[in-house]
Amino acid sequence: MTDNRIQTYIEQRLILNQKVMDTNHLGIKRFFNLDTNAYTDSVLSGKTKELLGLTASLVLRCNDCIDYHIIQCIDAGFTDEELFEALNVGLVVGGSIIIPHLRHAVESIELYHQLQMKA
Amino acid sequence: MTDNRIQTYIEQRLILNQKVMDTNHLGIKRFFNLDTNAYTDSVLSGKTKELLGLTASLVLRCNDCIDYHIIQCIDAGFTDEELFEALNVGLVVGGSIIIPHLRHAVESIELYHQLQMKA
Amino acid sequence: MTDNRIQTYIEQRLILNQKVMDTNHLGIKRFFNLDTNAYTDSVLSGKTKELLGLTASLVLRCNDCIDYHIIQCIDAGFTDEELFEALNVGLVVGGSIIIPHLRHAVESIELYHQLQMKA
Amino acid sequence: MTDNRIQTYIEQRLILNQKVMDTNHLGIKRFFNLDTNAYTDSVLSGKTKELLGLTASLVLRCNDCIDYHIIQCIDAGFTDEELFEALNVGLVVGGSIIIPHLRHAVESIELYHQLQMKA
Amino acid sequence: MTDNRIQTYIEQRLILNQKVMDTNHLGIKRFFNLDTNAYTDSVLSGKTKELLGLTASLVLRCNDCIDYHIIQCIDAGFTDEELFEALNVGLVVGGSIIIPHLRHAVESIELYHQLQMKA
Amino acid sequence: MTDNRIQTYIEQRLILNQKVMDTNHLGIKRFFNLDTNAYTDSVLSGKTKELLGLTASLVLRCNDCIDYHIIQCIDAGFTDEELFEALNVGLVVGGSIIIPHLRHAVESIELYHQLQMKA
Repeated sequence: MTDNRIQTYIEQRLILNQKVMDTNHLGIKRFFNLDTNAYTDSVLSGKTKELLGLTASLVLRCNDCIDYHIIQCIDAGFTDEELFEALNVGLVVGGSIIIPHLRHAVESIELYHQLQMKA
Repeated sequence: MTDNRIQTYIEQRLILNQKVMDTNHLGIKRFFNLDTNAYTDSVLSGKTKELLGLTASLVLRCNDCIDYHIIQCIDAGFTDEELFEALNVGLVVGGSIIIPHLRHAVESIELYHQLQMKA
Repeated sequence: MTDNRIQTYIEQRLILNQKVMDTNHLGIKRFFNLDTNAYTDSVLSGKTKELLGLTASLVLRCNDCIDYHIIQCIDAGFTDEELFEALNVGLVVGGSIIIPHLRHAVESIELYHQLQMKA
Repeated sequence: MTDNRIQTYIEQRLILNQKVMDTNHLGIKRFFNLDTNAYTDSVLSGKTKELLGLTASLVLRCNDCIDYHIIQCIDAGFTDEELFEALNVGLVVGGSIIIPHLRHAVESIELYHQLQMKA
Repeated sequence: MTDNRIQTYIEQRLILNQKVMDTNHLGIKRFFNLDTNAYTDSVLSGKTKELLGLTASLVLRCNDCIDYHIIQCIDAGFTDEELFEALNVGLVVGGSIIIPHLRHAVESIELYHQLQMKA
Repeated sequence: MTDNRIQTYIEQRLILNQKVMDTNHLGIKRFFNLDTNAYTDSVLSGKTKELLGLTASLVLRCNDCIDYHIIQCIDAGFTDEELFEALNVGLVVGGSIIIPHLRHAVESIELYHQLQMKA
């Protein structure tokens, strides 16, 4: 057990994704595949597209999606300062209703770095 | 006490709905009445309209609303496979931002079946 | 030329969908395919899923999506009274912010019937 | 005929509301009634509630709803400066995605004043 | 430690706002400043604008934002009956998808009064 | 006069932005300033941030915002293929409800190129 909510998120996401796969629904499986493919290297780098995913998740106010893309963005090599810049774009686009998700995102960046240091 | 989050949801919803009724606000009471009436049998069956409610709740990304309509849909006789079909429509309409709520929904279906078996 | 906005919508949609296909983007093409497949007969009828699509489009307030699913629903055999029932569910779920789209939907049903009578 | 889009909006709204009433759907009629009642004088003045309606319409980005509440707010006696203050709250809450609707709202205020001067 | 979730919210908000300030991002800091300024007395009272903020938060379905504005509204002198009126406007505008947030809001009003009585 | 809707958008945007500035509201002016500053070169290039703005605008389904960022992105040097990649990320995140805006975006890219060729 852990009290780092990013680690809890990673673990829970795996367990629940398995339940979704266990529905054995072809359409859902194909959607998950399409989703994965959207972030692979192409004429835009996968790295850049993860940043697009993070900003989209922030303006749509989905904490789980924010956490997922923060992990992907940090793994892809973005610095914290670059992530703050992307979050600022999302804040200006989405307004103060975004602020609770911005607070969440800033904390998630810190928590994922703590996980990385332990690993 | 329980660790089945659907049971917790059912109990909390009752307690909080009572607090809302205790405001004694006529407009709010009439809205709740209108809401209940929208899902009764008419030229469309109440069962079909619960499925509309579930899909609408998924694309609007409201976990409590999803849980409510999952319970109603299962009680009305929908099979899990039929619910997955409706969730797939919601996933395609609403995109990957829906995925955390899809995970929630699939787990809620499982948890409500566990409650049913105990009853 | 026509002054029936549903006919204009049908024609414009075809022209613009062709432009989207001309981008030759594999991910986009696969998404369109997935979207089409979501509404085919399965454990739920395609007809029922079109009604889910209509309600989802109403609560998400997308007039073009509403028009598309109204056409599909009428072609699938829903009566106007059944469509009004589905629209009422969407209205209660989505609130008064839905009303301009409800007005649009009711007019679209009328306009599509006018097109059908001419054909 | 007119080229003032607020006058066109007022006329079209009446025509389409009549079509909605002609569906003769009890739930829809009761919703419209509930909607009207929400803005009558009570412990909060109807005037104040129209301003709540305007701000809600702006952050939900519904131009028709914005126009409706601008008309109600001006008729209720709000000055342009007061309306700009409410629009500013909506802009900060909702972010730059609101800006096209802010532009629409500022123009609607001007257009409704032009209508008032003609009357 | 406390089991009053409004007190927990107030404490967590302070801690996380500090983390956001620690990013030292000028754009974010200026946005927070703009946000604060939007609710100061002007041609509309700060009190009235807090009620606009509450209604906007309800229709946008952000529990943290709802809690923030409930606290501000109660501190500014609104009675519970006045807040219920504003919540009713939000409910009618936003529909039944709002109901879980309405339940949250009604409970938050009660919880903040409990905090006030202890203070 | 023109029948290129991107040129019409550019012209109308200027006229209406002037009306917004004429409100002389300090908060609104500061917001517009903050918005402009969010897209200047910093640890992320302005070019990259315009692409974030485009994706955010697509998932939030704002045609005017999409058009604005398409113009900025093309002026900043993105190729059509790169823009289609970003639009595909937005489509997967936001789902089929995005499709009418995707159609709009693909046409806007074509229309802006036509304007560029005339210039």
